[in-house]
Amino acid sequence: MRPIAILTDFGMTDHYVGVLHAVLVRGAPGAERIDLGHDVPPGDIWSACFLLRCAWPHLPDDAVVLAVVDPGVGGSRRPLAVRIGRRWLVAPDNGLAAAATPADRVVQLDWRRMGVPEPSRTFHGRDLFAPAAARLATGVDPLSLGTEAGSTEAVPCPLPQPTRMPGGWRATILHVDHFGNLITNLASDLATPAAMARLGPAQVASRVSTYGEMTGGEVALLTGSSGLLELAVNGGSAADRTGLRRGDTVEIFSADRG
Amino acid sequence: MRPIAILTDFGMTDHYVGVLHAVLVRGAPGAERIDLGHDVPPGDIWSACFLLRCAWPHLPDDAVVLAVVDPGVGGSRRPLAVRIGRRWLVAPDNGLAAAATPADRVVQLDWRRMGVPEPSRTFHGRDLFAPAAARLATGVDPLSLGTEAGSTEAVPCPLPQPTRMPGGWRATILHVDHFGNLITNLASDLATPAAMARLGPAQVASRVSTYGEMTGGEVALLTGSSGLLELAVNGGSAADRTGLRRGDTVEIFSADRG
Amino acid sequence: MRPIAILTDFGMTDHYVGVLHAVLVRGAPGAERIDLGHDVPPGDIWSACFLLRCAWPHLPDDAVVLAVVDPGVGGSRRPLAVRIGRRWLVAPDNGLAAAATPADRVVQLDWRRMGVPEPSRTFHGRDLFAPAAARLATGVDPLSLGTEAGSTEAVPCPLPQPTRMPGGWRATILHVDHFGNLITNLASDLATPAAMARLGPAQVASRVSTYGEMTGGEVALLTGSSGLLELAVNGGSAADRTGLRRGDTVEIFSADRG
Repeated sequence: MRPIAILTDFGMTDHYVGVLHAVLVRGAPGAERIDLGHDVPPGDIWSACFLLRCAWPHLPDDAVVLAVVDPGVGGSRRPLAVRIGRRWLVAPDNGLAAAATPADRVVQLDWRRMGVPEPSRTFHGRDLFAPAAARLATGVDPLSLGTEAGSTEAVPCPLPQPTRMPGGWRATILHVDHFGNLITNLASDLATPAAMARLGPAQVASRVSTYGEMTGGEVALLTGSSGLLELAVNGGSAADRTGLRRGDTVEIFSADRG
Repeated sequence: MRPIAILTDFGMTDHYVGVLHAVLVRGAPGAERIDLGHDVPPGDIWSACFLLRCAWPHLPDDAVVLAVVDPGVGGSRRPLAVRIGRRWLVAPDNGLAAAATPADRVVQLDWRRMGVPEPSRTFHGRDLFAPAAARLATGVDPLSLGTEAGSTEAVPCPLPQPTRMPGGWRATILHVDHFGNLITNLASDLATPAAMARLGPAQVASRVSTYGEMTGGEVALLTGSSGLLELAVNGGSAADRTGLRRGDTVEIFSADRG
Repeated sequence: MRPIAILTDFGMTDHYVGVLHAVLVRGAPGAERIDLGHDVPPGDIWSACFLLRCAWPHLPDDAVVLAVVDPGVGGSRRPLAVRIGRRWLVAPDNGLAAAATPADRVVQLDWRRMGVPEPSRTFHGRDLFAPAAARLATGVDPLSLGTEAGSTEAVPCPLPQPTRMPGGWRATILHVDHFGNLITNLASDLATPAAMARLGPAQVASRVSTYGEMTGGEVALLTGSSGLLELAVNGGSAADRTGLRRGDTVEIFSADRG
């Protein structure tokens, strides 16, 4: 039985996450279940893609990932199961199904072929995606879940790429984490070891290696745990300190060009 | 080993939920554990009953449900294990033990008969209910946990029923979910396909089938994932939009009678 | 495979907790995983020590505890695995590794000896502590994880002890729980059965046995579920009622000396 990792925007105040787990236990008894998080802001595909990409390299090689952020539930967006290497990603085709690449195979889920009751109009996570994930965890033929679909036509993941500018990069803040760290989309190794981030007309954040190198209260630039540059404050919140938010851009330049 | 589903009002900031899990792992090693939620507002039997009822149809057939919202802990309320079909519900007799019906058997828990240490005065979840749930998961004789009790005398579940009114129903909002949807107690199939909800003197919410059918910002009436009518806003919060709250009533009438 | 209990300050809005679980599933497939909580305030060793101590007596005898509240990550603080009885506690040497006593053995983790990739500078939970916990769960020789270290030199747990005063004790509030209960550091059996807590010049909290004995709105003193005296209000929040907070002191005296 493959392990199943779960990411949703369902929050923890309702029965929704518990019901997903119940469906998985019924369909794939004994499978290890891993909660990747359920506090994605409602309908926020961007955030879900970010979290999924960060978790992806650390998941078991044969994981089935059930990712349900599905504001278009009941509409025309396709429900997909995407194989990437040995893993399966089960998600709506709204950008989330394209969070991991490259897709080796894409199956469009079909409840009739799966032999499940007609899904409700509002909770395909429970009625379609979770049953599909459970079956993939048990090792069924993917074509028992639906029909082969093209891998190139999926709605792309909305996360922006950094852009080149003279002397450096214009990066976008992809995520503000629990600690107030501002995680950018610039891979650490694209910036010079002495790179700086421009925070204001006369203010820069210098690059450091660890939180401990920061002096009190200073905003610094360091390599975060996913290999992306982030702005951080030792023992504080870079988000509070800078006022920067998800989606804001930051210029990161070589110190000798500043 | 039967799966164990857990619902409490313990919140996630303390060690309480972790300790319940630890007791279950000790008493029923290898049992699948499913968190149905721990963010029931403190002492809120109504909310716990609602969540339990919504999750109930989706649980494994042989699940043991450990439900602890227990403001009367240490007092005279009875600790119960209730069998409904093949499932067991372990809960205090404060309405929560009656959330699922019909009861086929009721056992009043007795720590002396269970052979556990005398429970603390403030945490029967840990000292009495979880050990009982763990034992039921292992398949013990229920009478090793306590004594047979009458099934008809349990404190009733506090969730109200909708009432008939000319041309429709007076429904009560049972729950406001994470997305701001207002879930009523009116089963979808009791209302006509063209039913409307009266939101104010000159404002109604029309019935739609999916979130996608709602035009921007409109409050609409649709069948939620538990088969109950709910008020919802596509991409927004019906609770914020209407100001309605849990316990408020809403008139739902046939369009041709409006 | 030993069960693994996990306590962090990672919060639930990011992928961090999910990634820890993924690392554990990869390294110790089939191990039972118990979340002791992830809402420790960022960097708050005190709170983590408190929660760990309260959960400790209830954990499986052979549990491996992975506790990561690690504001000094990437700095010189030692990463440790501490054996206490049959259990292992894997934690940074910042007070958290000393939360449970007495230490029977202390091993300083060494990624080179473990044969894992060089840890990132910011996420030793993922790169060092979780792999070590997973290996201990599988039963490896602890010396395959690092080198023997002295047990007496660990940074002490920051939780204060109550102090004697004429007629009673000066206790410190160690924790404010989800229900607003104010949990002190005074063991219940050190106070007299008729002990009182001084809340103000002319206000005391009397000792009761259960929540039900409190009359409406009154702040009372009772034995909490960990055997510590706590201030509580039946159906309300003692924290809101008194304005007391974590770290504040409270005088608890014998009634006949009041």
